[in-house]
Amino acid sequence: MSEHVSLEVIAHIRNGRASTDDADWGSVESRIELDPRFAAGLEGLDQFSHVVVVFYMHLDPDREPITLRRRPRGRSDMPLLGVFAQRGRMRPNPIGVTTAEIVRLEPGALVVRGLDAVEATPVLDLKPYAPAFDRRDPARVPDWLDRLMQGYF
Amino acid sequence: MSEHVSLEVIAHIRNGRASTDDADWGSVESRIELDPRFAAGLEGLDQFSHVVVVFYMHLDPDREPITLRRRPRGRSDMPLLGVFAQRGRMRPNPIGVTTAEIVRLEPGALVVRGLDAVEATPVLDLKPYAPAFDRRDPARVPDWLDRLMQGYF
Repeated sequence: MSEHVSLEVIAHIRNGRASTDDADWGSVESRIELDPRFAAGLEGLDQFSHVVVVFYMHLDPDREPITLRRRPRGRSDMPLLGVFAQRGRMRPNPIGVTTAEIVRLEPGALVVRGLDAVEATPVLDLKPYAPAFDRRDPARVPDWLDRLMQGYF
Repeated sequence: MSEHVSLEVIAHIRNGRASTDDADWGSVESRIELDPRFAAGLEGLDQFSHVVVVFYMHLDPDREPITLRRRPRGRSDMPLLGVFAQRGRMRPNPIGVTTAEIVRLEPGALVVRGLDAVEATPVLDLKPYAPAFDRRDPARVPDWLDRLMQGYF
């Protein structure tokens, strides 16, 4: 028996980038436009240098069924792994979580750099990047991840 | 006009902790029990030292309307700020995102330490903690945050 939750879209991403290619996200500047009902919630976010963006990867509407084990990006030089051991977007819930640099706060919008989300992506939450919650050192990651991430940001 | 998305609960948190008090989360060990349909997705997650847990803060059902500007935890020594400049759980979408230490992988479950979520919390996604997505250095945070976070983890 499956259990669902309903979440409200609080903002949309505007950056003109249509391609989901896994390359060159680091220089992409995105304007996160808030639903006017939520715009007041941005106040003070520019006291932080970075923001954790929780977004809904809305492309791939015909995404069922999700393969639970696969090789990252289908590459034969990558190990066969569970979907929760990967960051790819084809996952049971298409939620993306990325920390981006805050460029500036505008009325009703937040401009960020380095967010790996395409034009019109719905946003579910914004959180200030706080090392206590978000940074863990030292962190161990497998070697294949470094190879996979070359050129991504 | 509001726009919603529906997400599926993939797991629940078992840790016996009922209290949402903002203290001593660092030592809490939690067992994240996967819905059996998604259990195969865990494979290989123990190649990483940490996991980003995306969870749904299901308490506070009578949470409307959300105050968009408030002082963190209602403390008079904290600044008046927008909800997206805070990590508190009373936010438009009650999504929590915390990076926790992986203790071990079990059949159908992941045991972690330092996750700030109570017993029975629904989980929406698990992602391997990857510095390329999640760690930003140097990060600037305001002074009040350090005061607020004392004793939290």
